[in-house]
Amino acid sequence: MRTSIATVCLSGSLTEKLTAASRAGFDGVEIFENDLLASPLTPEEIRTRCADLGLSIDLYQPMRDTEAVPADEFARNLRRARNKFELMRRLGADTVLVCSSVSPLALDDDDLAAEQLSRLADLAQEFGIRVAYEALAWGRHISTYDHAWHVVESAGHPALGTCLDSFHILSRGSNPKGIEDIPGEKIFFLQLADAPLLAMDVLQWSRHYRCFPGQGGFDIAGLLRHVLRTGYEGPLSLEVFNDVFRQAEAAPTAVDAHRSLLVLQEAAGVTQLPPPDVPSGIAFAELATPDAQPVTQVLGALGFTRTARHRSKPVDLWQQGEARILINTGTAARRESTALAAIGLESPHPSAAARRAEALLAHVLPRRRTPEDVPLDAVAAPDGTELFFCSTDRPELPDWQTDFTPIEEHRAADTAAASTGLTTVIGRIDHLALTQLWHHFDEAILFHSSVLGLRPQESVDVADPYGLLRSRAVSTADGAVRIVLTVGATPTERDAPAQHIALGTDDVVAGARCFRAAGGHLLKIPTNYYDDLAARFDLTDDELATYQELGILYDRDAGGVFRHCYTRTVGRVFFELLQRDAGYQGYGAQNAPVRLAAQHMA
Amino acid sequence: MRTSIATVCLSGSLTEKLTAASRAGFDGVEIFENDLLASPLTPEEIRTRCADLGLSIDLYQPMRDTEAVPADEFARNLRRARNKFELMRRLGADTVLVCSSVSPLALDDDDLAAEQLSRLADLAQEFGIRVAYEALAWGRHISTYDHAWHVVESAGHPALGTCLDSFHILSRGSNPKGIEDIPGEKIFFLQLADAPLLAMDVLQWSRHYRCFPGQGGFDIAGLLRHVLRTGYEGPLSLEVFNDVFRQAEAAPTAVDAHRSLLVLQEAAGVTQLPPPDVPSGIAFAELATPDAQPVTQVLGALGFTRTARHRSKPVDLWQQGEARILINTGTAARRESTALAAIGLESPHPSAAARRAEALLAHVLPRRRTPEDVPLDAVAAPDGTELFFCSTDRPELPDWQTDFTPIEEHRAADTAAASTGLTTVIGRIDHLALTQLWHHFDEAILFHSSVLGLRPQESVDVADPYGLLRSRAVSTADGAVRIVLTVGATPTERDAPAQHIALGTDDVVAGARCFRAAGGHLLKIPTNYYDDLAARFDLTDDELATYQELGILYDRDAGGVFRHCYTRTVGRVFFELLQRDAGYQGYGAQNAPVRLAAQHMA
Repeated sequence: MRTSIATVCLSGSLTEKLTAASRAGFDGVEIFENDLLASPLTPEEIRTRCADLGLSIDLYQPMRDTEAVPADEFARNLRRARNKFELMRRLGADTVLVCSSVSPLALDDDDLAAEQLSRLADLAQEFGIRVAYEALAWGRHISTYDHAWHVVESAGHPALGTCLDSFHILSRGSNPKGIEDIPGEKIFFLQLADAPLLAMDVLQWSRHYRCFPGQGGFDIAGLLRHVLRTGYEGPLSLEVFNDVFRQAEAAPTAVDAHRSLLVLQEAAGVTQLPPPDVPSGIAFAELATPDAQPVTQVLGALGFTRTARHRSKPVDLWQQGEARILINTGTAARRESTALAAIGLESPHPSAAARRAEALLAHVLPRRRTPEDVPLDAVAAPDGTELFFCSTDRPELPDWQTDFTPIEEHRAADTAAASTGLTTVIGRIDHLALTQLWHHFDEAILFHSSVLGLRPQESVDVADPYGLLRSRAVSTADGAVRIVLTVGATPTERDAPAQHIALGTDDVVAGARCFRAAGGHLLKIPTNYYDDLAARFDLTDDELATYQELGILYDRDAGGVFRHCYTRTVGRVFFELLQRDAGYQGYGAQNAPVRLAAQHMA
Repeated sequence: MRTSIATVCLSGSLTEKLTAASRAGFDGVEIFENDLLASPLTPEEIRTRCADLGLSIDLYQPMRDTEAVPADEFARNLRRARNKFELMRRLGADTVLVCSSVSPLALDDDDLAAEQLSRLADLAQEFGIRVAYEALAWGRHISTYDHAWHVVESAGHPALGTCLDSFHILSRGSNPKGIEDIPGEKIFFLQLADAPLLAMDVLQWSRHYRCFPGQGGFDIAGLLRHVLRTGYEGPLSLEVFNDVFRQAEAAPTAVDAHRSLLVLQEAAGVTQLPPPDVPSGIAFAELATPDAQPVTQVLGALGFTRTARHRSKPVDLWQQGEARILINTGTAARRESTALAAIGLESPHPSAAARRAEALLAHVLPRRRTPEDVPLDAVAAPDGTELFFCSTDRPELPDWQTDFTPIEEHRAADTAAASTGLTTVIGRIDHLALTQLWHHFDEAILFHSSVLGLRPQESVDVADPYGLLRSRAVSTADGAVRIVLTVGATPTERDAPAQHIALGTDDVVAGARCFRAAGGHLLKIPTNYYDDLAARFDLTDDELATYQELGILYDRDAGGVFRHCYTRTVGRVFFELLQRDAGYQGYGAQNAPVRLAAQHMA
């Protein structure tokens, strides 16, 4: 279906907005009146600019409090409408949106509304324009889509139809099933917006908290299915008022927006995309660092050994059980400090995973490789993390490890590690925690869920001593892949919360002891925390003493127990060592404020 | 009365919070459990630290879902309580807060609640601790203060009383009059928080949007009066959960908090502060600049002439009618770019104004002057702007102009200015627009209203192309002093909106023409804006053509018409030239998005 976006969804000048919409693949735009008023381009120039960018102008909405008003008021409205219709002719826009009146002057008189809308449609027809009438959720007398349709139907004017807006319909709790009673050719326009399920004043909710489909709590795909059954053939148009998008860069927001419409069409069965290729595990995590020594020292103490080196790049493979970490000191890794730069996702069908990512507008990364290297598909996540779709130890597929040459010293190191006992206790990467860009948190969630087929968990607020963090995990059903996305309290990158790699073990106490014995430093947790643990849980004194000695934090839910401790931070990265009962679903968020305070102290 | 603040109101480590609370003048603190758990200090060390800082520990709140629960659950709660009472003894805290249960396990059984609270109070008594029971607004069965009091009363236990919280009472719309039915000695604690009047889920409202008294929409002073009539003698304690305060620096937030309690006590008639000395006008605005030339060029084109020079500092006085602008190029003015650094407020009794400011914790500025200079009282506003309380042309008081020596060239310049005609058309500073620090916007409003006696107007959202701005004016009843406080979309200072000086004239068209004739550059406004004006208002073609030629924006409300245009920005400052009908109350906010877009374009 054709896709469209209201310019109010994007930041910047009108020119910047149009360029971003075009580049993200939209077919058309709704031009928001303030964007036109503030633009130095004439309507004709805007029309040409849009045509050059391959964008139609699908809607203009200059009217307010148009219908069901006293006669003198309506005369003024008609006068204003004529002026605006002339403008629309210059602009080449053929559909005008009229929202139901909110003015205290508006009368509770459907017949008057129908009559005045007909007269407006008469005038519009002279200009070749169609009037799309929409019920605002806070309209004074007309606030539901069926009521608005009833008025349109009774007017019976060929140039008058209705506009449906998913926010106005779903925020009122209206049943969208009734949409199927409207003939498709009388639905002149469809505006789509999602929103988080907040119990708040609907006007504030609408003005500040709308989001793109799939990023909120409404069943937009369900609504779309009803609309499609009517035979509607117009565009799917996004109209999202959101404080965050207003500040964000227009280009990535436009991509995020267009992706949301692709996912929506897939969910509604309108289009077929390459199906998700859900990863079955984490093949590796890659740290980029200007100086490998500090981080490899920590890895060594965690029992990792350097097992291989990339044959053409300065990248080492460190391994411990099934946990593999790449240390990249190459040019691509020229960062200020150690950071989590890439994730290898164990993909059932790597090329299929890449096709879906590309279809969903992921930024496909060039294959930086020499001719003999294994072809690896990779895309960039919204936060810039590189995601590699790869295969490990599966004979039927090219193996990313082929590019690595085993290291002789490995044997010796392995023996040393074995002596610390850690080879037996750390087995896998339990989860990765990535810091997101403030303006692109919802985008990151939709990206990971739609591109990778991971399921988003509930959003959690975490109190850092210097501001509230928001954290949301995406994971596979079986927990084989878990990624925790966290966003800082402020839109700056200053003091962004650190990223981390959480390593799963079957015995966190043994793991922590071995780490310490090998010279590792564990984050110190205050005694007061353990006094509180004693009050909250039935733990033996020995158990408590052990946890306190090692800085192990403790949590429990209906499914089981979770114990975890932390290394010092190196650059922007630290490691978590954890022991998770199979039934425990969380990440110890309850303990995060204590951990964050301890990290600020360290 | 004694004042107290919950550590959750302030950012940072527990030590940072305690220090900030003490320095701002609080007598005590409520220690929030997470702050204690995350602190490396032992309870005894915290007790000593508080004592050293002159702070009592007035409350601790470690209990959740305590009462009206099944017997086994209650047994666990008692066990936990014993542990926490031991901690409180070490801490030296004698009052524990118990909030009404929210757990699905809680039973709707007031007798059981009373019985279990009595048993808890028995245990507390062993430790010399009092139990203050409070109704959470979202308590499962007990959610109103009178219900909680009924349970406390029926328990009839000497160590059990009630805690009142203004948010929980007023957010539910309860009538606080009934507080007077509670004996004062049974009100064990009083927590105060205000909040903006939002229609939203009360739990979210409470957790994220509370603010200090006087910064929201509740009548906290009215509630306090009811409490005082009971004979309550405990502390006034702030418990404010707020996303912004969590990020802000603790020290200024603590000052803001303490100021709010001083203003509250004045409003409730508990204390007397020096009364407000409402300014009667703006004596001068002072621009600090590293290079006077660009800004004085604009001033010259606006018809200002340099009339005097400070006798001991590199400060020039530029004047046009009653509008006086100081240009400071001295060391105190070493800023990166031109900025509005100080405001001279025409004060009926300058020393009285200063006394009130000091009593309300304003930062009093040292008098940087030579012995012969006029003594000028000055304080810093939260955004750092220096506010001078001064007198102009009033023989009974020292005149700030005495420090300035008239300039000979004045005469000649005056003649030149007269030839442009501008001397007759600009007469006064209509308003000043100041950019606020993101984390201290509410503080700034309370500061200007309480310290200066200015009235806050409604808050207005303004759409900048790169994010939403929030703007709120404070003014005198007669409009003689108007200050518009604006906060940017993000908490960074990057791209902070510019400040401006708005000059009132009786003929904006003549003023704009003279400015242009004198070489001034006016901000260009897009043609589309004027097409829209034509649609919205009955303006003659001539009028429209004139406005468009000069870039004059137009607004109208019930009280009259407002016309305004803008100079180019110099450093961080620009000038507005405006003509205001006496009845027009606003600032042309409707036109701000067009102006902001044009400024980004320029």
